[in-house]
Amino acid sequence: MSMDQPTLTGFSTDPDATTHLPFIPQAVSPAALTNPKADIAALDELERHLFAHRYASIGITSYGETIDPEAATADRGEALAILEEEDHALLCSAETGALLERLSSASAVLTPMQAAQVRILKRDRARLVDVPAEVQSAFTRLTNESSAAWQKAKGKGDWSAFEPYLDRIVQQSCEIARCRNPHADPYDIMLDDNEHDTSRAFYDRFFAQVKEVVVPLLADVRASRRNQGPSPLAGRFDASRQWELARDLIALEGLDERKVFLTSTEHPFSDGLTSNYAIIAAHVLEDDVLSNVYTMLHEGGHALYEMGVDPALNYTSLKGGTSMGMHEAQSRFFENIVGRSAAFAPRLIEVMARRFRGQLGRVTPGQLYAAANRVVAQPIRVDADELTYPLHVIVRYEIEQLLVSGEATAADVPKLWAERYKNYLGIDVPNDARGALQDVHWASGALGYFPTYALGNAIGAQLQAAMIAEGMDFDGVCASGNLNPIHEWLRSRIWRYGRSRDTNELVLDACGEPFSARYYTDYLTKKYTALYSL
Amino acid sequence: MSMDQPTLTGFSTDPDATTHLPFIPQAVSPAALTNPKADIAALDELERHLFAHRYASIGITSYGETIDPEAATADRGEALAILEEEDHALLCSAETGALLERLSSASAVLTPMQAAQVRILKRDRARLVDVPAEVQSAFTRLTNESSAAWQKAKGKGDWSAFEPYLDRIVQQSCEIARCRNPHADPYDIMLDDNEHDTSRAFYDRFFAQVKEVVVPLLADVRASRRNQGPSPLAGRFDASRQWELARDLIALEGLDERKVFLTSTEHPFSDGLTSNYAIIAAHVLEDDVLSNVYTMLHEGGHALYEMGVDPALNYTSLKGGTSMGMHEAQSRFFENIVGRSAAFAPRLIEVMARRFRGQLGRVTPGQLYAAANRVVAQPIRVDADELTYPLHVIVRYEIEQLLVSGEATAADVPKLWAERYKNYLGIDVPNDARGALQDVHWASGALGYFPTYALGNAIGAQLQAAMIAEGMDFDGVCASGNLNPIHEWLRSRIWRYGRSRDTNELVLDACGEPFSARYYTDYLTKKYTALYSL
Repeated sequence: MSMDQPTLTGFSTDPDATTHLPFIPQAVSPAALTNPKADIAALDELERHLFAHRYASIGITSYGETIDPEAATADRGEALAILEEEDHALLCSAETGALLERLSSASAVLTPMQAAQVRILKRDRARLVDVPAEVQSAFTRLTNESSAAWQKAKGKGDWSAFEPYLDRIVQQSCEIARCRNPHADPYDIMLDDNEHDTSRAFYDRFFAQVKEVVVPLLADVRASRRNQGPSPLAGRFDASRQWELARDLIALEGLDERKVFLTSTEHPFSDGLTSNYAIIAAHVLEDDVLSNVYTMLHEGGHALYEMGVDPALNYTSLKGGTSMGMHEAQSRFFENIVGRSAAFAPRLIEVMARRFRGQLGRVTPGQLYAAANRVVAQPIRVDADELTYPLHVIVRYEIEQLLVSGEATAADVPKLWAERYKNYLGIDVPNDARGALQDVHWASGALGYFPTYALGNAIGAQLQAAMIAEGMDFDGVCASGNLNPIHEWLRSRIWRYGRSRDTNELVLDACGEPFSARYYTDYLTKKYTALYSL
Repeated sequence: MSMDQPTLTGFSTDPDATTHLPFIPQAVSPAALTNPKADIAALDELERHLFAHRYASIGITSYGETIDPEAATADRGEALAILEEEDHALLCSAETGALLERLSSASAVLTPMQAAQVRILKRDRARLVDVPAEVQSAFTRLTNESSAAWQKAKGKGDWSAFEPYLDRIVQQSCEIARCRNPHADPYDIMLDDNEHDTSRAFYDRFFAQVKEVVVPLLADVRASRRNQGPSPLAGRFDASRQWELARDLIALEGLDERKVFLTSTEHPFSDGLTSNYAIIAAHVLEDDVLSNVYTMLHEGGHALYEMGVDPALNYTSLKGGTSMGMHEAQSRFFENIVGRSAAFAPRLIEVMARRFRGQLGRVTPGQLYAAANRVVAQPIRVDADELTYPLHVIVRYEIEQLLVSGEATAADVPKLWAERYKNYLGIDVPNDARGALQDVHWASGALGYFPTYALGNAIGAQLQAAMIAEGMDFDGVCASGNLNPIHEWLRSRIWRYGRSRDTNELVLDACGEPFSARYYTDYLTKKYTALYSL
C-alpha cells in the first residue's frame, strides 16, 4: 500500500553456498558468466521445474482438504514436505542466487516479462534463503497435519484438540520469521507476506479509519427499525439442488466451466493450478441457501482472478494473484459489490428460483436485496453483512498479535474471542465450532492473512469507483446479468499482470491515485444510509 | 513366469555420464566410496524424492482422468512431463548408477529390505537409462493428451479422432523399446514391462492352453439351453443409489473406507498413492447394475493389493503391486472367484437389495449367480463372463502385435477388431465406441497390458487352489460375508511384499509350485460344466 507506513526491505538476498542447483543442467552455469543467452535458458529451465512443483503442491494441498481419504494425511504431508525441500534447493542454491544476480544486471537483454520473473524470483528466494530447508519443510508437515486436526476438532467443537497445533504453528511461524529477519517484528513479516509493503502500522491506521465510520454507522443501523422481521429466504434447501445452484452460479458469474473443478470442503477456498484449472471448494448448508450463494460468488471471484492471468505467465513464477489483499479484493468484489447490489438482485433471484421454484418463485429482487444486506451481529465471519464484516476481521487481527507477541497462547483464544465478540458485536459466542474454530486459516499456517479481507473490501470499493469514474454504467452491467464489461476492466488492469505487478502499482495505474480507504468507508456509508433510511 | 519361455535380460545397467544427481546432497557421493553408511543415507534420500514424485504423478494422472476440468489437459501434461524428466535425472545419473552398484556389492551391510530396494531401483533404472529424457517425457505428454482425446472420441464413437494418437503411441513406444534394447522384439519388451519374464513365446503358449479348453467349452455352453430367458436383474437403476451401492460394496469387500477415494470416470481404474490412499474410479450405468457391482469388486481387488503392501515400504520403490499380472490376479480374483461364486451370491444380493428393495428384494442368490455367470457373446470386455473373457483379451493381444510389428496401422484396427469378434465370439461389433474405443489402455500408452488380465485370471485360480489345498473352507468364507481369511492369506503371501518379490517367486512360495495354467482351465471347466449341466 502507498500509505506512509514503514516497509520491510531488510531481507538478505545473498546466496548461501551450502546447496546446489538440482535441475538446471550443470553446463549452463559456468558458461553463463559471459553468456546472457545461456542464463535466460537457465531461467526458463528453473521456471519449468518450479511450475511442475507448484502444480503438484497446489493440487496435493487442495485435494487434501477436499477429496483425500482420512488415513492419507501423514503421507500427503511427507510428499508435500519433500517437494518443499526440492523447491528450497532449487531456489536457494548459490547457483540460482548468482544466476538471478547476473540476470538482474543484464536487464537490457531481458524482455519485460523476463525482468519481472527475475524480480519475483529474487523476492521468493529472499523469503526462503535464510530459512533452513528442514525448518520450512517441518512447517509444511505441521500445517498439513493441523488442517486435518482442525477439521476433526471443528466437527466436535473441541478447541482443546486443536490448541496444541495452534501453539506449534505460532511458534514455528515466528521461528521462520526470525530466520528471515531477526530485527523485524515477526507479525510485520507475516502481514507483508500476505500483502506486500504492509505492516502493523499500516493496518492499525487502516482499521482506525474503518472503525471511525463503521462503529457509529452500526449503532445507527441497530437503532433503526427497518429491514427486520422474518426472511423470505429462510427454510430448508435440499443439498443436491444447492450443488446444482452452485454450478449455475459459476455460469452466472461468467466463469469458464471447462476450467473449474467444483468440490466440497469444510471451509470454502479456491486455488488455481494454472489459468486453465481453478479449484472451487465450497460447502452447502441446508438451512442457509444464501451462504451457498455468497460462498460461490466469493470463491468464484478468486477463480476469475486466477484464470484471468495472462496465459503466457502459466509456466512462470508470475502465475497467479499478486497478493492475498488483491485476491480478496476480487473475491469480495464479486461477493458484495456485485453480488449484494440491488442491481444484480433480479439476476440472482432468477437463477436461485430456477432450482427452488416452490420456495423462491415469489421472492422479489427487493426482498433478496434486503435479506442479503440485513445487518445482523452474528458469530460467523463468512456469513457477515458488509458492515459488521470488518469487525470480525479486527477480532482476528488483534488475537493474532497477542499470539505472535507471546502475550497469549492458544489456550487463551476462546476467552479472547468471546470478549471481543461481546465488545465489538455485542454477542455471545455460542461454542468454539462457531467461535475460534470457524476458520481454517490458522490451522493451515496462515497468520497475517485475515486483515487482507478488509483491505480487499477497501481495494474493491476503490476499483468500483474508478470503473464508474471512467464512465462504466456499473449498475447497468450488473442488471444485464452479463458481467463481461467488469471482467474486462479488471482483466486489463489487474488480472492479466499476475504477480508481475504489486498491489500498490496496480491500484495506482487502475485508479489514477494511490490506495485510499475513503472509497470503502464512503461505500458503506452510502449503502447503509440508504438501506436503513438513516 | 516359470514356464520355458525366453526371458529378457539384455538391458544395460551401465550409468551414462551425461546427467547429474539432482537431490542427493553432493557431499555424500564422493565420501561414500568407502562409506556404506553414507551410501545407505543416500539411498534413503533418493527414495524420499522418488516417493514425493511418485505421489505427485500418480495423483495428477489419476485426477486427470476423473476430476480435472477439461481445459487443464495440456498444463497437466506439461507438469507430468517435467516430473518425469526429474525422475529420469534422479534415477539415471551416473552418481545414482555408481551408488546402486556400490550398494549391490555391499550386500552384507544391507537389510533384506534395502537389498530389495537396490535390486528394484537398478531394474527401474535399467528401464530408463538408455531412453533419452526428452523421449520419455514426450511420451508422457502424448499419453496424457491422448487419454483426453480418447475420452472425447469414445463419446462420439469417432475412431478417426483417436486414430492419429494411436499411431503416435505405437511409434513412440517402439522407439522407447528400441532405445532399451535394439535387438529385442519391442512387443516382448512391452509384455515384460507389464509382467516380468514374460514374452510373446510365453503368452502364445499360455493362450493356446486356454483356447484348447475354452473353445470347445464355449461351443458346448452355446449348444446348451440352460441359463437363458430374461434376467431378473434387468431394468433401470438410479445412478445416485448405485453410487451408494458402490460404497456398500467397498465395505462388503473389506476395504478400509478411511483409505479410499471413490470417484467416477469413463473407463474404471484404481491406483494407490500409498498403502493409506487408494483411488477407485468407477462408473455407473443406469441400465446395468451388474456392471457397477463387478467393476467395484474388480477395482476394489486392486485397491486391496495396494493397501495390503507392508506400510514400511510406503516411502520406497518397493511400494505397490509387483506387476500388472499379479495386480489383475487380485482384481479378477475378487471380481470372479469370490464375486461370481455361488457361495458369495447371498451376501451380494443382500447388499444390492438394501439399495434397490423394490427391484431386487425378491431376487434369489441363485438367480443372481445365474445372471452373473450367464455366458453371452457380447462386445464389451469388462462386462464379459469368465468363459468368453479370455477371447476378448486374445483379440487385443493379436492386434497389438500387428500394430507393433508394423503389419497394421491404427486405421486398420476397426476392421481387424470386427473380424476377430466375428471369428472368436461370433458377433458383429455395433460401433467403435463399443468396439476398439471401449478400453482406455492404448490411449494411456499401455501396450502389452491386456494379456495380463488373462494371466491374472490364471494366477488367481492357482491361488484359490492353494488356499483350499491348505485347508481353507473357501466357500464358507465367501458365504460368511467376512472375507478376512482370504485377505490374510493373500496379504501374508502376496500383498505385503510389494515390489520386493516378482510374480514367479510369489507364486512358487504361495502355491508350492511354479505357475501353471491348469488351475485356470480346470476352474473354468468345472464351473461351466456344472452351471450348464454339460
